[in-house]
Amino acid sequence: MILFPSATSTAAVLRLSFFPTVRSPAARFGTTPPVGGERVRPRVVILGSGWAGFTLARRLDKSRYEVRVISPANHFLFTPLLPSTAVGTLEFRAIQEPVRTIEGLDKYYQAKATNIDLEVGKVTCEDSYSLSVFEVPYDYLCVAGGMKSNTFHVQNVDELEGKAVFFLKHLYHARQIRNRILECFERATNPTIPAEQRDRLLSFIVVGGGPTSCEFMSELHDFIKKDVAKWYPDLIGYIKLTLVEAGPGILGSFDKALSDYYVEKLIEKNIDVRLNTAVKGIEVREVEGCPRFTVAKFADFDLPFGTMVWSAGLAPVNLVAKSNLKLDGGRIAVDDYLRVPDTRGRVFALGDCANTPDHLPPTATVAEQQALYLADCFNKYYSKFDVLDERNRTKDLPLPGDVTPYLMPWNILSFLNRIFCKSSPEFHYMNRGAMASMGMGGGVTDLNKTHLPGPKTIKGQVAYFVWSSTYLTKQLSIQNMILIPMYWFKALVFGRDISRF
Amino acid sequence: MILFPSATSTAAVLRLSFFPTVRSPAARFGTTPPVGGERVRPRVVILGSGWAGFTLARRLDKSRYEVRVISPANHFLFTPLLPSTAVGTLEFRAIQEPVRTIEGLDKYYQAKATNIDLEVGKVTCEDSYSLSVFEVPYDYLCVAGGMKSNTFHVQNVDELEGKAVFFLKHLYHARQIRNRILECFERATNPTIPAEQRDRLLSFIVVGGGPTSCEFMSELHDFIKKDVAKWYPDLIGYIKLTLVEAGPGILGSFDKALSDYYVEKLIEKNIDVRLNTAVKGIEVREVEGCPRFTVAKFADFDLPFGTMVWSAGLAPVNLVAKSNLKLDGGRIAVDDYLRVPDTRGRVFALGDCANTPDHLPPTATVAEQQALYLADCFNKYYSKFDVLDERNRTKDLPLPGDVTPYLMPWNILSFLNRIFCKSSPEFHYMNRGAMASMGMGGGVTDLNKTHLPGPKTIKGQVAYFVWSSTYLTKQLSIQNMILIPMYWFKALVFGRDISRF
Repeated sequence: MILFPSATSTAAVLRLSFFPTVRSPAARFGTTPPVGGERVRPRVVILGSGWAGFTLARRLDKSRYEVRVISPANHFLFTPLLPSTAVGTLEFRAIQEPVRTIEGLDKYYQAKATNIDLEVGKVTCEDSYSLSVFEVPYDYLCVAGGMKSNTFHVQNVDELEGKAVFFLKHLYHARQIRNRILECFERATNPTIPAEQRDRLLSFIVVGGGPTSCEFMSELHDFIKKDVAKWYPDLIGYIKLTLVEAGPGILGSFDKALSDYYVEKLIEKNIDVRLNTAVKGIEVREVEGCPRFTVAKFADFDLPFGTMVWSAGLAPVNLVAKSNLKLDGGRIAVDDYLRVPDTRGRVFALGDCANTPDHLPPTATVAEQQALYLADCFNKYYSKFDVLDERNRTKDLPLPGDVTPYLMPWNILSFLNRIFCKSSPEFHYMNRGAMASMGMGGGVTDLNKTHLPGPKTIKGQVAYFVWSSTYLTKQLSIQNMILIPMYWFKALVFGRDISRF
Repeated sequence: MILFPSATSTAAVLRLSFFPTVRSPAARFGTTPPVGGERVRPRVVILGSGWAGFTLARRLDKSRYEVRVISPANHFLFTPLLPSTAVGTLEFRAIQEPVRTIEGLDKYYQAKATNIDLEVGKVTCEDSYSLSVFEVPYDYLCVAGGMKSNTFHVQNVDELEGKAVFFLKHLYHARQIRNRILECFERATNPTIPAEQRDRLLSFIVVGGGPTSCEFMSELHDFIKKDVAKWYPDLIGYIKLTLVEAGPGILGSFDKALSDYYVEKLIEKNIDVRLNTAVKGIEVREVEGCPRFTVAKFADFDLPFGTMVWSAGLAPVNLVAKSNLKLDGGRIAVDDYLRVPDTRGRVFALGDCANTPDHLPPTATVAEQQALYLADCFNKYYSKFDVLDERNRTKDLPLPGDVTPYLMPWNILSFLNRIFCKSSPEFHYMNRGAMASMGMGGGVTDLNKTHLPGPKTIKGQVAYFVWSSTYLTKQLSIQNMILIPMYWFKALVFGRDISRF
């Protein structure tokens, strides 16, 4: 059946610096010594498989380092496209890459790191399935475990999570949300359902005014306008969408004119936008003749709901919260070289879980640039330090030399970095702007703080084009670069799927 | 963003008798009276949304009948492609169609029918979510509820179902299997796992020798050979695949030469094929230092396993088993017109749950042809009988006139039916042959008992081509006709996805 080239030859042909790699086999550099066995290359252990961890693992030179990844998720998630999957605009598998596809990766453990022993230089892990405990010694440790959703201890958020309240950080969250939305519509079509219960089921609340929440609300609106209107026409008049934000505005880090524009558009779409409105608690109530239902409590009013998506803030993961690493604002304090102080340069932290001296925000683009910087440090400079030599055990890792910041979002344009950016040994974040879509065909792009030439703000269809083309071209595999536009086309022309299983 | 035609105009252009329809809105024929309200058109209530129920619901003339579907699954499942989704060759959504996409459908209830009242003419239903009970009166009832997996009361099959033992009849089964397979591989890579536990996790048993089991085993083998070998190279040597069948051969309804050929190919692939071997029970055992594990017990030996797929036989669903309808071999006895006796022609049964006088096997192609026949009867003949007239309440529905059997699998070739088939009022099943794939690139096609011209048996790549092109062209929506070959291409060139979430 050889009508098609093999994956390996395809990969060879297409391996240009612009194109993502075809996934290729791991473990190509020598035999793997057992855990704790004698190492021939310094071992870099990376905790986490998100933007920081996955990017770093990919970029490290595997001929110089033995790279091991420990993460409870066995895939990297392209988070900017996560809201689209929660209503079926995109399918879950199109926005993720298995960790094992990292070329040359020595080992991947589907486990959670539970303790870091800085003295001995090892991480204690708990296997994600069997919960068995094992240890992984390291020469260098890069903590990139991210952060988790912050419930702010609001009553019942944790208890109802996965049932009527949902976070939106992982793929399984998106699947839960999608199933719950479809369940609410199906329940609401029950011929015996009381009108109040139907209205409760058709009330959707999104908590938080950041890009994730706003994009999800826009996607939900698209889904209702295009697909629900077609398949559940009797329910349309009863649906209520509410976006609540505790602060004075949404998209707080964006240009104010763009935030206002976004709010205007949401209101035009009949979405109830409540600013300066914090959820005080969630109650579970019973009324005779109805199943129990949930009510969100605010300072001035109550709002029953069928589905609440909670994307309101970040909190440290347990590993970080319980570690003896110095924290700053719940995140690991690092220096300008992303090093954790007092570890002789053996331990680094990057991504959401790390707080740099200039307090960069916990975003995907910061995480990615930190990983690219750190990979360059390791590949160009740290490899010159023989960390395996016993005599260097108590010596500090020397500081790196100059590294060029990564202004350009794409590899193929990386030659421009040298033109636009000043190299330096410290990590410098290059602001590439911020984008938020409004479902298909709309969006906002804020280029105010960037170092990129061109207009400072963009809105509407052009902003959507910038958003979609940027994220499409940043895909890490050819498969997803094909799948994503195909799903967009399918959603646009044929609508989203409404089956639940 | 109007670069693409709307779904409606696309549907109009493409509505040829060969092409499937673009999904279009339901409920286009007049107001729907409330449950129990006065009807203007006879109401046909269909229980089930499988091959029989879904096909019948699509084909009934909605200008003549008010069609309502009651089914716990809100989608039709293209069952021949189900084994492919359990390892990721295809994605789940590409092989299903939401029930609501049936053009002109009056109502769909996601509910389970629990009782049929033949006297009054109504069905009692239990909502799938709230479990609330409601009734749906009918003028005609078509029972197409299918059958469920038969455990033959083997010890622990029910208890372990969804954990280590899996059926393969619904989409959620395929998802469970896929997740379990990936979990077993991830667990087996744990650095502390004892060798015996690893071997147990990597032991896969498939129970049953029918086409579903054989195709799943072939798909699993393909997945292991192509994808597992690439991403989990250390585990390959420990994987064990076993196919067990209680009878003397697999693919029992196929030509013996083809069955033997299939067994040969399985053995060539290092699959242990055990005929005349029935599972006697499943034990859950504990060994110190390991999580509990499962062992399949046979007459002469025991075999520990991580995953068992049980596709060994069919049993009546609860509605049928507990109803007062006359059963024959666990299936509802019907006459040559698919009528349930002593119901004055108001109640029909078709598909797996019905047993015709000639005891047709419970297969998709029988179910489909029965539905096409019955739809013709309703559209051409039964509409002449005024079932809503009170004076006809106790009169029998007259027998139908001639109906042409459906030999051709595709609408566009239906004109050939009249040439090759003899019309008659009774249902006549036209054997179109049987097919089973061997994963990608292989298969068997048995045309011995068909009335089609051409060779009698086909094997190998040509059989795979027949299998894939037949099922591709039988898709009911353009979306899936695009998605399916795209997934096949992706699996062939890039491999299957191994992420688990």
